[in-house]
Amino acid sequence: MSINLVRFDGEHGPRWGVLDGADVLPLPEEYETTADVLADGAAAARALLVGSGAHRMRLAGLRLLHPVPDARILCQGANYRSHMIESGMDPDRAFNILFTKSTASLAGPDDDIVRPGHVRLLDYEVELGIVLGKAITGPVTVTEETLSDYVGAFVVANDVSARDVQLPQGQWYKGKSYRGFCPVGPYLVVPDRDEVARWRDLRLTLSVNGEARQDSLAGDMAFGPAATLTEWSGLELLRVGDLLLTGTPGGVALQPPGALVQRISALLPEDKKWELFVKGQAKSGAYLKPGDRVEAAIRTDDGELDLGVQRNTVR
Amino acid sequence: MSINLVRFDGEHGPRWGVLDGADVLPLPEEYETTADVLADGAAAARALLVGSGAHRMRLAGLRLLHPVPDARILCQGANYRSHMIESGMDPDRAFNILFTKSTASLAGPDDDIVRPGHVRLLDYEVELGIVLGKAITGPVTVTEETLSDYVGAFVVANDVSARDVQLPQGQWYKGKSYRGFCPVGPYLVVPDRDEVARWRDLRLTLSVNGEARQDSLAGDMAFGPAATLTEWSGLELLRVGDLLLTGTPGGVALQPPGALVQRISALLPEDKKWELFVKGQAKSGAYLKPGDRVEAAIRTDDGELDLGVQRNTVR
Repeated sequence: MSINLVRFDGEHGPRWGVLDGADVLPLPEEYETTADVLADGAAAARALLVGSGAHRMRLAGLRLLHPVPDARILCQGANYRSHMIESGMDPDRAFNILFTKSTASLAGPDDDIVRPGHVRLLDYEVELGIVLGKAITGPVTVTEETLSDYVGAFVVANDVSARDVQLPQGQWYKGKSYRGFCPVGPYLVVPDRDEVARWRDLRLTLSVNGEARQDSLAGDMAFGPAATLTEWSGLELLRVGDLLLTGTPGGVALQPPGALVQRISALLPEDKKWELFVKGQAKSGAYLKPGDRVEAAIRTDDGELDLGVQRNTVR
Repeated sequence: MSINLVRFDGEHGPRWGVLDGADVLPLPEEYETTADVLADGAAAARALLVGSGAHRMRLAGLRLLHPVPDARILCQGANYRSHMIESGMDPDRAFNILFTKSTASLAGPDDDIVRPGHVRLLDYEVELGIVLGKAITGPVTVTEETLSDYVGAFVVANDVSARDVQLPQGQWYKGKSYRGFCPVGPYLVVPDRDEVARWRDLRLTLSVNGEARQDSLAGDMAFGPAATLTEWSGLELLRVGDLLLTGTPGGVALQPPGALVQRISALLPEDKKWELFVKGQAKSGAYLKPGDRVEAAIRTDDGELDLGVQRNTVR
């Protein structure tokens, strides 16, 4: 059975613990890398869960940190048909869009999301995060059968995006890399080997001020984890603990104008086109504004895998 | 006076040395990180250069490795007016295009450049690389005066690009991240503080089979290192040894069709548009093909700073 690890702000720095109902059993050791926590921490956690008399803390009393301390963030763009269509992209696209997001964007699952002063179009994107469990140093072909060798853990991530930077500037890195633009957690869910195949059944949901915005199964993604890891292996040296974001389903605030308006605006100079785009989008009430409460969660409908709920306030 | 360090394939793994004319004086210690080589290696190198009786090896007999062992690669796109114009981009663009390139793309200065089987439009981009000499953990304002605090070294880099992946897929990471797509070196040039300001006088040149293709001063870049580091500091945690590529000047193989053709082709479906683009570009004899010899060099015209020459054969 999967175990849910948490990383929290202890008295003298970050600590790890394992979830047991509404309690957390703190692990005796500290682990600075995800590799160590997946190898040694998970074993210690299982021992605590079957033992008795472990020290207990209330989960609700802890300040949770993101559980991917040494992750680099590797991203897939527009990987759900529903999001491709709403973004005005070709839903039958034959290629996987790959890019990266800064490590400085990592934030705790309950941290505030801070809107930078110059940003008007702040958007959310709930995404299934896969934490690599095995290093990849050269091209490999990952299949559905071997996927469980590579999946160390699952996490909830929010790929927060400044649309008015991301889209006019063309390359997506910057508009997605401001500090705090990637809340991760609460749980580092370490699945059993046979539970990895259930990634398809994970349901991603996101609400803003209680209003449902996103709701989709991970199985709806266009390029699944096996094919995507195969492609990443041809491009990057992957380390245990690296975080793969797998794209967001439909329901984000971004709703570009229809095809006709886009075709007309393509005739305008670039800066004018984007000025009109930002103005048009800013009229939508869907973008995040200070005070908004964002809740993002991922779990299987039967609760077998439960990655937990992020709760972030926009500032 | 600046010193030129090299990293080479020793009998039992990578070694460091300092250039002295046509010789290399091997450093007694090994250094696994650029931070260590900048702190301790550079001091050891200076001591060897003023001492006598140091062991000497011929530079020509060494297999050189890239001199940035633990670098992440942070890139600027279209940062020279000449390259913006030839690429069909607005040369008066008000923003700095930032993105990343994989660490797996790092290669030695004389390594072959391997064209992946599916790539038809293989292009070159000589770039000034700045190796970070001071960590940046939060937003800072870097000025021309404080720039020398942050510049650890200068290097030659070639931002090899598969245009038929980079451009149709929109995000540039993939088309620039295949293995071997970033030859770096030969020299890790550690400048004196007062030499850092001479970055503007560095001349970038690149030839293919002896034919000059690129020739420009670094001073022609649109967004200089101080402003760019200031912007990166708001986005990423920068470590000593990280490599900042500062963009390429005009003269690359990519020569997109004129404005009229682009306007007409914008009316086509995306896949048709890019199919025509690749067909059109493939007719140009400018792209790299197996057997081509690429030479890239960066130095000041007076030779005070000399980052050396890369010589790569395309396979």
